[in-house]
Amino acid sequence: MSAPGSLEALIEALRVLPGVGPRSAQRMAYHLLQRNQAGARRLADSLAHALDVLRHCERCNSFSEQDVCGRCANPGRDARLLCVVEMPADLAVLEQSQSFNGLYYVLMGRLSPLDGIGPRELKLERLVARAMDGVVEEVIVATNFTNEGEATAHLVSELMHARGLRVSRLSRGVPVGGELEHTDAGTIAQALIERRPL
Amino acid sequence: MSAPGSLEALIEALRVLPGVGPRSAQRMAYHLLQRNQAGARRLADSLAHALDVLRHCERCNSFSEQDVCGRCANPGRDARLLCVVEMPADLAVLEQSQSFNGLYYVLMGRLSPLDGIGPRELKLERLVARAMDGVVEEVIVATNFTNEGEATAHLVSELMHARGLRVSRLSRGVPVGGELEHTDAGTIAQALIERRPL
Repeated sequence: MSAPGSLEALIEALRVLPGVGPRSAQRMAYHLLQRNQAGARRLADSLAHALDVLRHCERCNSFSEQDVCGRCANPGRDARLLCVVEMPADLAVLEQSQSFNGLYYVLMGRLSPLDGIGPRELKLERLVARAMDGVVEEVIVATNFTNEGEATAHLVSELMHARGLRVSRLSRGVPVGGELEHTDAGTIAQALIERRPL
Repeated sequence: MSAPGSLEALIEALRVLPGVGPRSAQRMAYHLLQRNQAGARRLADSLAHALDVLRHCERCNSFSEQDVCGRCANPGRDARLLCVVEMPADLAVLEQSQSFNGLYYVLMGRLSPLDGIGPRELKLERLVARAMDGVVEEVIVATNFTNEGEATAHLVSELMHARGLRVSRLSRGVPVGGELEHTDAGTIAQALIERRPL
């Protein structure tokens, strides 16, 4: 009521960020406007730019500025191995382990019935089409070892088996209930080596 | 290294938000791009718009879309009373108490030597100039009752006394160590009524 409309609008807009309520949105708005206008402008610009140029790679479904991202287009990678992860952060952890030279498919989520995310919302038919390219020989399921990640792994494995593809899962080197993102590269490497057929 | 440049730039830019580290910036970026592109666009637009149109009111120093904000330009308010607060959120709480009809001056901060914020950074000479307009008879200091807020109140009071102005402070109805922003309107009203000379 007392704040200018453009300030109210900014505070409301900040609430789109995960975990940000009215109070912390207000604090963020004051901070941006009062203490760091240059940083705020950079944020507005980079957000608008990212929205403009980022899309999903046609092959791996991760964020990319090209139709096909550099990794998927790299002929040096082993296209017979397709590793399925939940999020780009998981892909980054696997890359950091330097123990995988195949390709990826990023689900951009996981099965989560409580949040209304089922097979359709995950667009699993895109993953099936990708895996059926005639080159992929083995699908390595590297979803998290949480309940939702395990359920996702189970469904992906069923879909792949039904189409005659070999499926494996990262070994249980990753702590049960833990998330890939928080696992050290050595454990990740071990889990890749010990992957077991599903 | 593996993420597109525009995504890396967005993640880096999000770290301008208070309390946001690399991990949570990454999570925010994925959330915005994957789950709420409309909200993300609204955030970019409203942030850019706020940066474009918001400035500091020449009289109260709070955020305003005009040179002089609507409150300061309102002839129905008692220009003999000038209430000094730290942040716009404090002003909003005082307004909600519906027990003050004077004008405000918003410091946009507080003395905080550890953060390098001294009298010069707070631009206290602007407050002095504002209070010396020949109309203001009493300056009500409504900074927080924290150590930094009390130190600020002390300095403001000295500056005002040196120029022959009457100074008062919100009464201790506000819990010691507490912040205005988290105080209920009734307590705020009581503290206004019981304000004591400094």
